[in-house]
Amino acid sequence: MEETNPWKLLSSKVVYQNKWMKIREDSVITPQGAKGIYGVVESNDSVIIVVLNSKDEVYITKNFRYPAQAWKWELPGGGGDNEDLLKASKRELEEETGITAKQWTKLGFTNVSNGLMTERMATYLAQDLSFNGDKEASDELIIDAKFVSLEEIDSMIHEGELDDGQSITALYLLNRWLYSKSQKD
Amino acid sequence: MEETNPWKLLSSKVVYQNKWMKIREDSVITPQGAKGIYGVVESNDSVIIVVLNSKDEVYITKNFRYPAQAWKWELPGGGGDNEDLLKASKRELEEETGITAKQWTKLGFTNVSNGLMTERMATYLAQDLSFNGDKEASDELIIDAKFVSLEEIDSMIHEGELDDGQSITALYLLNRWLYSKSQKD
Repeated sequence: MEETNPWKLLSSKVVYQNKWMKIREDSVITPQGAKGIYGVVESNDSVIIVVLNSKDEVYITKNFRYPAQAWKWELPGGGGDNEDLLKASKRELEEETGITAKQWTKLGFTNVSNGLMTERMATYLAQDLSFNGDKEASDELIIDAKFVSLEEIDSMIHEGELDDGQSITALYLLNRWLYSKSQKD
Repeated sequence: MEETNPWKLLSSKVVYQNKWMKIREDSVITPQGAKGIYGVVESNDSVIIVVLNSKDEVYITKNFRYPAQAWKWELPGGGGDNEDLLKASKRELEEETGITAKQWTKLGFTNVSNGLMTERMATYLAQDLSFNGDKEASDELIIDAKFVSLEEIDSMIHEGELDDGQSITALYLLNRWLYSKSQKD
């Protein structure tokens, strides 16, 4: 089999749209040759920020997550609003937490849900940190925030206290980066 | 601030639905007190399977991912069809790859995209493997599949050859499990 698109697109329409996402329904011929549809969730690419202090601790925040109807620990981040993703990361971080960072490193660019969504997530590492107490309020309303060691965060993941897949993806990329750095040192 | 829901729900309607997802639009009062909407993508919980052989290599498959319109390396998995998630994992794995496993371990249950979707993903570790050559064809049409070492998969992630966040989440949970096992041995 060649690496060509096995789906044939017949037509495409937007079936729902709001400020944050667009739902597209494509009429297709499936790889098996049957007529069918494929619904795709389109949203702006997003960012997530691994805020790492000099003790190799990571900053996590507790936000209310509407789809789950629950407060959830996670890494800071958010929608990219179609802007440059590094700029979006700096803005999101300062707005959500009052933290600014002098050193930024891109750790990865990954798909969030490759069966349903087009959204890609940029993971940035933020280091050399400054704190501004007068942080802005955001829609997400952070109830709590703290630095935790990698052992603590690992234990929170094991206990289900941090269950955000996007944060866990970013932590994989952080561990990879730390390991790679330790090999060079 | 108490840990109560800061959003007030006014009304809710389904604005789009197909076999795989339902889009719900809620009319809300935001935490800031403004009238607004929140769109939520509802889909069945999904599964992803870390297939680990006796050499600590992981099985990856190359599938065409419609939203990205590209062939992508990833771990086997798929939608749960509302069935028991372990049962779904066994079915998905055998259908997609012809692999059955005697030993199954749940590694985690995580949110896929906690700002937009309700979907949760169960990660299962499959060990003590058998292979059946007569695997069924599935909608996803796997073009290639192989076992890779953890070093190779890490390098593929670094190079952007494997960029599926759900697979990377599962690999974090695998590394955690392997580390925890090594501490016990």
